[in-house]
Amino acid sequence: MKTSRKIINEPLKCADELLDGLVEAYDGDARKVGERSIVMNHIPDGKVALLVGGGSGHEPIYHGLVGKNLADGAACGDIFAAPPPNITLEATRAVHRGKGVLYLYGNYAGDVLNFDMAAELAAEEGIEVRTVLIWDDVASAPPTEKQKRRGIAGLVPIVKLVGAAATLARSLKELEHMAIKARDNTRSVGVATLAGSIPATGEPTFELAPGMIGLGMGLHGEKGVGTMPFCRADELAPKLLELILADDLSFEPGCRVVLLINSLGSTTMMELLIVLRALKPLLRVKGIQVHETLVGHYATCQEMAGLSISLTKLDSELINLWDMPCSSVCFTKM
Amino acid sequence: MKTSRKIINEPLKCADELLDGLVEAYDGDARKVGERSIVMNHIPDGKVALLVGGGSGHEPIYHGLVGKNLADGAACGDIFAAPPPNITLEATRAVHRGKGVLYLYGNYAGDVLNFDMAAELAAEEGIEVRTVLIWDDVASAPPTEKQKRRGIAGLVPIVKLVGAAATLARSLKELEHMAIKARDNTRSVGVATLAGSIPATGEPTFELAPGMIGLGMGLHGEKGVGTMPFCRADELAPKLLELILADDLSFEPGCRVVLLINSLGSTTMMELLIVLRALKPLLRVKGIQVHETLVGHYATCQEMAGLSISLTKLDSELINLWDMPCSSVCFTKM
Repeated sequence: MKTSRKIINEPLKCADELLDGLVEAYDGDARKVGERSIVMNHIPDGKVALLVGGGSGHEPIYHGLVGKNLADGAACGDIFAAPPPNITLEATRAVHRGKGVLYLYGNYAGDVLNFDMAAELAAEEGIEVRTVLIWDDVASAPPTEKQKRRGIAGLVPIVKLVGAAATLARSLKELEHMAIKARDNTRSVGVATLAGSIPATGEPTFELAPGMIGLGMGLHGEKGVGTMPFCRADELAPKLLELILADDLSFEPGCRVVLLINSLGSTTMMELLIVLRALKPLLRVKGIQVHETLVGHYATCQEMAGLSISLTKLDSELINLWDMPCSSVCFTKM
Repeated sequence: MKTSRKIINEPLKCADELLDGLVEAYDGDARKVGERSIVMNHIPDGKVALLVGGGSGHEPIYHGLVGKNLADGAACGDIFAAPPPNITLEATRAVHRGKGVLYLYGNYAGDVLNFDMAAELAAEEGIEVRTVLIWDDVASAPPTEKQKRRGIAGLVPIVKLVGAAATLARSLKELEHMAIKARDNTRSVGVATLAGSIPATGEPTFELAPGMIGLGMGLHGEKGVGTMPFCRADELAPKLLELILADDLSFEPGCRVVLLINSLGSTTMMELLIVLRALKPLLRVKGIQVHETLVGHYATCQEMAGLSISLTKLDSELINLWDMPCSSVCFTKM
C-alpha cells in the first residue's frame, strides 16, 4: 500500500472522519445519526423530507448540501461507494416528519441498488419513499437512454431547486414532480485532465495518457465521448457547450438558465474563470440568458484535475425556487 | 518555456482573462474598470468605500471578495504581482463616493510600495485614502515585529467584517478603526505539502523535499517555522493551533471566534474536514467558542497542496458585523 500524501489519519477511516468534521462545520445546525448520516437538527413537523446521498470523497457534495432550504439529510457511503441500506434507512427515519421522504441522488448502479433496498425497508416501517435519479451527464449515454446516464455536478442546481421546493411542498407527490422537472431541465458535461488519488492506497483513480483530455469523462474516470490532445480554454469551451446544446433539451433564444462551472479538484478557480470568459459570449450569441452563474469547487473527485459545465433551464416556477435563499457548507445564497 | 497543463489560453494573459471571467461571474453586479480592476455597479453616494487587492492567481481572493456588504472594488495585479499604482488609482476613483477610500490588503513589500504610490496619486486628486495592512500569519515574524508579517487566509474573515462595517460607517476614520480591530483580532498559520505551478512557465512555485511539510510556509513558499516529516492530521492540527495560541492575542475561555480552514489549492475538502474534526475538540477543551466555521477554497496559490487555519476573535461589535449577510464569488452568508 502506497503512503498517501494526503493530510488524513487512518486511510480506511476517511469517510467516517470527514463526516465527523462535516458535522462540526455545521456549528450545531446538523448532527450525525446512525452509522454514517448527517441530518438537520430542526426539521418542522409535517415537512416533506428531502434525502440525498452517495459515496464520500466528492466533497463538498452530497453531504455538504444538507442545509436551510436544501436537503434535510444525507446518507454517506464509504469513499466512492454507495451508502448501504441500513445507513440510508437510519437517515430516512431521522428526516421523516409524517409526509414521506424523497430520495434524490446520482444514477450509479450501486447507489440505485442500495437506495432501493432502503426504500423497501422504509416502506415496511410505514414511511413512504419516492425516488428521483439525477442523470445530467450528456456524455455518458444518448438522450434515448437517459436511465443509463450518470449524475455529475448538475446535482448542485437540482438539489438547490428541490430543497427550496421541499420547504414549500404540500405532498411527496408534488415534491417528486418538481424534482423530475428540475432534473429534466439540467444538462452537464465534464472533462478530465489528470486523475485524483484514492485515499486508501494513494493509487490514481484512473489512467489518462499525458497531454490528453478525457472529453465527457466521468467523475471517477468513466468512459466519455473520447480523448483529445490538450487544447486552449477558448477551444474547449465551445466543444463542451455544443455537447450540451446538441442534446434533446431545447435552450431556445430568450430562455433563462443557471450556469455552473465546477472544478473536479485541483483545477484552479483561475482556469474556471477563463473558461467562463469563453462561455458567456457563446451563450449571449444564442440568446440564452444566464440568471445566475456559479463557479467553484462543488462536485470533486479528490484532487482530480478537470472541470464540468452544467446548464439548468428555469421557467417561472423554477426561478422562484432558485431565488430563495439557502445555506449549507456546499452552497449558500443570500 | 514548459507547456502548462492548465486549461488556459495565453499563459501571459491569465490575469486579464480571469478578471474578464470574474466580471461574468458577477452577472451584472460588478464591472471591469480601467486596466485591471473590478468594482460593484451600485455603490451608494456618501458611502465610505472599501478597496482590496493584490496579485492574481490566488482566486477566489482578493477580487472575489467584491460584493454586497463586502469590498466595493479590487485592484488586481498580474499573477503573483502587486497591482501597479495606475490600476489601483483607477479602482480608487471608481469606488470613491465622497467619503474617502480604505485600502485593505496583504502585507507584502511590492503591494505596500504600489498601493502607497496610488494613495499619493489619489490624494493629489482630493481623494482621502487610509490603509490597513493585513498581517495575520504568525509564522512569518515574531509578535514584536508584526509589520514584517504576511497576510494570508485570515484576510477572508477580516474583509467580511470590514465590508459589513463599510456599509454602516459614517467616516473613513471610523472604518479604519474597525479594520484595525478586525485585523488585530485575527491570527493564521499555514502548511505546505506540495508546490503549485506558475501559469506562465509550468514551473513549481517553490521547492519542498518529498515527504516533508513546510510548517508555517507562506502562500508562495516563503520561509515559515521549519519543515517536518509528513504526519497524521491529528498530529498536525494541535501543532498549528498551538502556533496561534502561543501568539500575543489572548483567546481566553469563553471567547467567541470565527474559525477558517482554507485549502491552498489541491488539498481536498475531505482533508480540511478531517483536520476540522481534530481541531474542534481542542478548542472546546480551551473554552473557545466557535461562532461560525468556514471550510473550503478561499485563499489559494494555484494547485498548491496545503492548508491554513485562521481564528478571528469576536467581541459584541464584531459579532454584529459578522452576522450581517453578504454575497460574493468568494464568500456568501445568508
